[in-house]
Amino acid sequence: MQIISVSLAIFAITWNVETTCGLFTFKKNIHSLEIFLDNRLILKHTSAQPAVHLGVGTASYKNNHGNFDISSTLSDRVSLNSFTVLENEINSTEVVSASNESFIVNFFHDLGTPSIYLKFSNEGLISTISVNKITGGKYNRLWLKFWADPKETIYGGGEQFNYFSLRGRSYPMWAREQGVGRNKSTIVTYFADLIAGAGGDYHTTYWPQPTFVSDRMYFMHLDFSFFSLVNLTNENCHELELWEDIAQAKFHFNTAVTWKQLLERLTDFLGRQPTPPEWLYNGAVIGVQGGTDEVLQKVEELQSGGVKVSGIWIQDWSGKFVTSFGKRVYWNWQWDPTMYPRLDVEIKRMRKLGIRFLSYINPHVIKDSPMYQDADAQGFFIKSKETGKTQLVDFGEFDCGTVDLTNPDAYKWYKNVLKGMLEFGFSGWMADFGGEYIPAEDAVYFNGRSPKGMHNSYSELWAKLNKEAVTEAEKINDTFIFMRSGFGRSPGYTLVNWAGDQNVDFSYADGLASVIPAALSMGMSGMGFTHSDVGGYFSDLCVVRTEELVLRWGEMNVFTPILRTHEGNRPNRNWQVYTTEKTIRSFARLTQLYTLLTPYHKFVAKEVANHGYPAQRPLFFHYPDDPSVYDIKFQYLYGSDLLVAPVFLEAQRTWQIYLPPDRWVYLWNGTEINVVPDEEGRGITVAVNAEIGNPPVFYRKSSDFSQLFQRFAPYVVYRPDDSSNLTWHLLLNNPTIFIFLIFRKVFWYVFLSV
Amino acid sequence: MQIISVSLAIFAITWNVETTCGLFTFKKNIHSLEIFLDNRLILKHTSAQPAVHLGVGTASYKNNHGNFDISSTLSDRVSLNSFTVLENEINSTEVVSASNESFIVNFFHDLGTPSIYLKFSNEGLISTISVNKITGGKYNRLWLKFWADPKETIYGGGEQFNYFSLRGRSYPMWAREQGVGRNKSTIVTYFADLIAGAGGDYHTTYWPQPTFVSDRMYFMHLDFSFFSLVNLTNENCHELELWEDIAQAKFHFNTAVTWKQLLERLTDFLGRQPTPPEWLYNGAVIGVQGGTDEVLQKVEELQSGGVKVSGIWIQDWSGKFVTSFGKRVYWNWQWDPTMYPRLDVEIKRMRKLGIRFLSYINPHVIKDSPMYQDADAQGFFIKSKETGKTQLVDFGEFDCGTVDLTNPDAYKWYKNVLKGMLEFGFSGWMADFGGEYIPAEDAVYFNGRSPKGMHNSYSELWAKLNKEAVTEAEKINDTFIFMRSGFGRSPGYTLVNWAGDQNVDFSYADGLASVIPAALSMGMSGMGFTHSDVGGYFSDLCVVRTEELVLRWGEMNVFTPILRTHEGNRPNRNWQVYTTEKTIRSFARLTQLYTLLTPYHKFVAKEVANHGYPAQRPLFFHYPDDPSVYDIKFQYLYGSDLLVAPVFLEAQRTWQIYLPPDRWVYLWNGTEINVVPDEEGRGITVAVNAEIGNPPVFYRKSSDFSQLFQRFAPYVVYRPDDSSNLTWHLLLNNPTIFIFLIFRKVFWYVFLSV
Repeated sequence: MQIISVSLAIFAITWNVETTCGLFTFKKNIHSLEIFLDNRLILKHTSAQPAVHLGVGTASYKNNHGNFDISSTLSDRVSLNSFTVLENEINSTEVVSASNESFIVNFFHDLGTPSIYLKFSNEGLISTISVNKITGGKYNRLWLKFWADPKETIYGGGEQFNYFSLRGRSYPMWAREQGVGRNKSTIVTYFADLIAGAGGDYHTTYWPQPTFVSDRMYFMHLDFSFFSLVNLTNENCHELELWEDIAQAKFHFNTAVTWKQLLERLTDFLGRQPTPPEWLYNGAVIGVQGGTDEVLQKVEELQSGGVKVSGIWIQDWSGKFVTSFGKRVYWNWQWDPTMYPRLDVEIKRMRKLGIRFLSYINPHVIKDSPMYQDADAQGFFIKSKETGKTQLVDFGEFDCGTVDLTNPDAYKWYKNVLKGMLEFGFSGWMADFGGEYIPAEDAVYFNGRSPKGMHNSYSELWAKLNKEAVTEAEKINDTFIFMRSGFGRSPGYTLVNWAGDQNVDFSYADGLASVIPAALSMGMSGMGFTHSDVGGYFSDLCVVRTEELVLRWGEMNVFTPILRTHEGNRPNRNWQVYTTEKTIRSFARLTQLYTLLTPYHKFVAKEVANHGYPAQRPLFFHYPDDPSVYDIKFQYLYGSDLLVAPVFLEAQRTWQIYLPPDRWVYLWNGTEINVVPDEEGRGITVAVNAEIGNPPVFYRKSSDFSQLFQRFAPYVVYRPDDSSNLTWHLLLNNPTIFIFLIFRKVFWYVFLSV
Repeated sequence: MQIISVSLAIFAITWNVETTCGLFTFKKNIHSLEIFLDNRLILKHTSAQPAVHLGVGTASYKNNHGNFDISSTLSDRVSLNSFTVLENEINSTEVVSASNESFIVNFFHDLGTPSIYLKFSNEGLISTISVNKITGGKYNRLWLKFWADPKETIYGGGEQFNYFSLRGRSYPMWAREQGVGRNKSTIVTYFADLIAGAGGDYHTTYWPQPTFVSDRMYFMHLDFSFFSLVNLTNENCHELELWEDIAQAKFHFNTAVTWKQLLERLTDFLGRQPTPPEWLYNGAVIGVQGGTDEVLQKVEELQSGGVKVSGIWIQDWSGKFVTSFGKRVYWNWQWDPTMYPRLDVEIKRMRKLGIRFLSYINPHVIKDSPMYQDADAQGFFIKSKETGKTQLVDFGEFDCGTVDLTNPDAYKWYKNVLKGMLEFGFSGWMADFGGEYIPAEDAVYFNGRSPKGMHNSYSELWAKLNKEAVTEAEKINDTFIFMRSGFGRSPGYTLVNWAGDQNVDFSYADGLASVIPAALSMGMSGMGFTHSDVGGYFSDLCVVRTEELVLRWGEMNVFTPILRTHEGNRPNRNWQVYTTEKTIRSFARLTQLYTLLTPYHKFVAKEVANHGYPAQRPLFFHYPDDPSVYDIKFQYLYGSDLLVAPVFLEAQRTWQIYLPPDRWVYLWNGTEINVVPDEEGRGITVAVNAEIGNPPVFYRKSSDFSQLFQRFAPYVVYRPDDSSNLTWHLLLNNPTIFIFLIFRKVFWYVFLSV
């Protein structure tokens, strides 16, 4: 027995072969293959634990107003438990030798077939694994298990609202509505599911992006626009499951020594966002609507209350009509002069006063409108295969055509629509939607590509069109375009992201809290400029916006690149920044703080534009040696020097903030805390006063902006003058909200105390 | 081209071979195999649409108080697209010829492996497909696609509460708690999931049974106790997915000309239930508890109000203790003389008065009790592999050992416990539970079988033990034992089923309505005697029992084999048959109707015992030519002569009933309706008066029991005397129920009217 083991050991050693190709190194013996990326193990294959599986399945993508129900029936799934490493060419004999260009590894089933040839290549700084060839059948499912360290953390995945550190869960890559509630345990999600099938889940997002960074200091970007599932539930592997035309898959990699370098390399690859226009720092962009007079009157009211206004965002510039969801914008992208008389003149007048006008557009055009008839006649919309005519998309109580951006003529036509908005005098717009509502099953594109692959890609195209329009008009540095939807290469096309339609509440999964991990995950996916609606957007049933929510949200957004308000989907039923004089006063102070920060806003913006360091950064970005910071998802660094811990729960008077090792100064009174690392490198948690208006913010003592930050201390005198009397205040000013909130409290009390 | 097609056609024809083995006929050509069962196509295999797949997976069975979370990760799934038909022996050369004994078909992957050898054999009336051999790897997943007609209907599956006609959904075969609410769209299910993970779903059941009958007049019974999934969602196949030790699988078949013959043959195969004891027809079995005096006082109160009582069921005979779920029985199966003084004497006294006593038992024994210590010392409990000691099962707030019924000594010991209950004087008991709570992952049985396979089998063993105990004591015709849990062969062992723990409400998925499809599906699975708790069982939060529910449930159960009440899990908070004098009066009338029906009850019972025609039958059982009846799940025939349409919603004064073509007489006033079939063979729907106490029931005019049924008409005089004033009545008699119901109404009104 002893002799046999020894001889087997020698045999194994004899078979150990190591070879390198660019960043990739291959170590193989008779039973296993290990692939390293710049000395990091990224793939480990053994015959007992194969890294690659091929399969056959049929999928269904049911679209319910942008909430997709996606399912797959699997027919076959085959372990490819054997492999050979080939030099460059398929079908050559097996010769393992070094090459600086590319390698091909053939994974195959014991019996020889099916098999897949994966090509490992390097171009510039990027190392790529791509599918070279598949033999043995028509396979449309690929599973690739990348090796994982049990302790490794993974971030990115586009805009992820619930989790920042992603391991332990699976993330489908499919652009769709984020949903209402987004947590199957909450009653809001329950009702949204019950009434409209629209509750969403932890992973539903407008902007999925198969881009991931690891604390083992590498990134992976999957170039593949069909559905994929990123399964991070296993201790020892990250499993990527790809559907449909799997031969198109490319996995791009690079490594780095620091987080800064990693993000710089990732954004080198994906493209970076230019700095937003500087007029934004003159104050808040105010979302108002209802017509020229109403809009100007509200802005004047705000200004006379001390609110600094940089822009007026009128989403209903093209007109309105009423549905059960609330008032809806008329999606025919032309000025409605009945609703907005003199708008052309007022835009110019206000601009001279330093205030810009912004509008709204999306890639859908409402049926039977003038623009629709024009575009339909020219065949500019995505078509239905069944009918051969324009594929109508159902938006609840109206239908739309969707501009086929793969048709060069349609692309040019719509670009001119955008340029027309600039010429009219708008300084930007919400460029809403992207792929979310587009059916994946019956849609015919000009370029002939499968609708299953175009669904996600559409978000990229829509961003690209917007960027090109402002670039060609030479207004990219003066225009504020904000988008919610994205996919793979979107960071290279999108100017500014906004977090979409949060509920007007303090819930973790869909309220104020959720936009913090959303910003962090976008940042780690290469999208450095994000922001959110002050006060959230979606209201229904007992979900109504309170003054506290508006102010808490606003005080957080002071410490983000952009401060913009939204009236929400039901303006009259919800608290607005202009609801009472007191709210105007409180919000005015926030706009003053925001403008006070202008030099720092500009500094942070340049770092995003020049290096790809996101504006809102996770703590580990600058404090990687502190093991406590890798799971923090509700705190962020705004730039390198401000540490922000937004208050995201109701009725808080103090709040805890974690300080990593550094010298910190409390923004509101200059208190210094010198945090010395403990033996493991950890910092400390402190509790600070957190009255409404004083969000917990610290700055680095050694910051170049210390003098600027010192100017915030005088603002601490602010105290809510009637916080003790909030209930009566609410009853007097908005009895509707009051009744809903009281009912909600009674309901929970009775149900949960039984 | 023309020439080629012709020659191919000739080639194909040449290859068509047909051969027969018992009921099975095989038709094959080069690319396809069709297998017929007595001229019914049951399996169609082509290389493009293979009928058999093998796979490898790992499963997890998480037990949360009997609510299992079952998931599987699939590693491989291989289409076995080729086949050969072998005569008798594996490895013989391919000779296709007739044989009366058995055939083997080898399905294999194109490349030769993996492969599975399925044996087709016939024994007596039963034709069987069994797994003979699997080659090419360690496979633990098998998918078998049986051919389906798109219009075919399928019934059975054990006890299915939501759907009677099963196609369009998947049914896991796993004994577990049925859950609370059982419909993810209801708020009750939502809270049950939120608070305890116990909401259940449409398929969760105590009694899954892989037995199915088809309207193409064949049955299939799968002998396989590991987890299986019966996927009836496809138009063209019924797919059975088997996990774990797939080599044990056996699929048994038979055919028939009529439903009667089919059920007779199915119950010939599974075994039939003997007639229940005739003393049951003396009245209702009253579920009461609390001690000798309290029990006797309540029964006396009921009797003096005119209630006919056949038995007193005291579930707490062994003592009680309190948990947050309510009062719980002390699971040490010995008389508690402190709580029930003189019980031994009272049993004898009451028996002379024609009233029996019944008790309660289950296969679990509470930790540290005298019985536990005794059995633990002898090693009579199922053990944990991890600890080597008794595997404790968590029942919420107490732990139990479970008797290892595979240990012959333990089996004998527990049988004697049951016999002891008979000797003490009990005339039956609720034999609660079965496999539901037994862990599938860490359990060691005396017989060494895998706990994953024993979980379901345990329910069969527990029923077998009960039947043997009463048979050996020669009291099978005098004893009423009722069980909720079952599996594969349970119909041959269980005496009477009861439907388990319904919510005390009018919900479709877990209330009064749900026990109707439950009874019908049990009947079509070969279990002919079922019944349910009058008024349901589970109460919590706003789910509270009203007088209306008790009376509606009672009036339905008059027309079932057994009338038995239950106080539910929270007796004080819920309406009881003894709550007011008026309720006693109303319930007294129902017991009178039930006893009035005695000759018919006996007639129906004999049909169950002698032929396996279930007591509660779907309409198609006797009216197969009417195409309207195949989807009816809330109406049934009690025996062949009574057509019952229970009122299962609140506040109904009229109710619709479907009458198939026949001469029908309305039970409550003798109105005759002669239903003549229309050109498609359909009957008609009529609306009848449905005051509480007058459930819609018709009898066949040609029934031998017409005279008996005519005696019901005088009872129609009954009217609820205060139905118009029910709210005040409730407030005065049970303010707790009143408050909950008012709150529930307000809650729904406010939420759903917004």
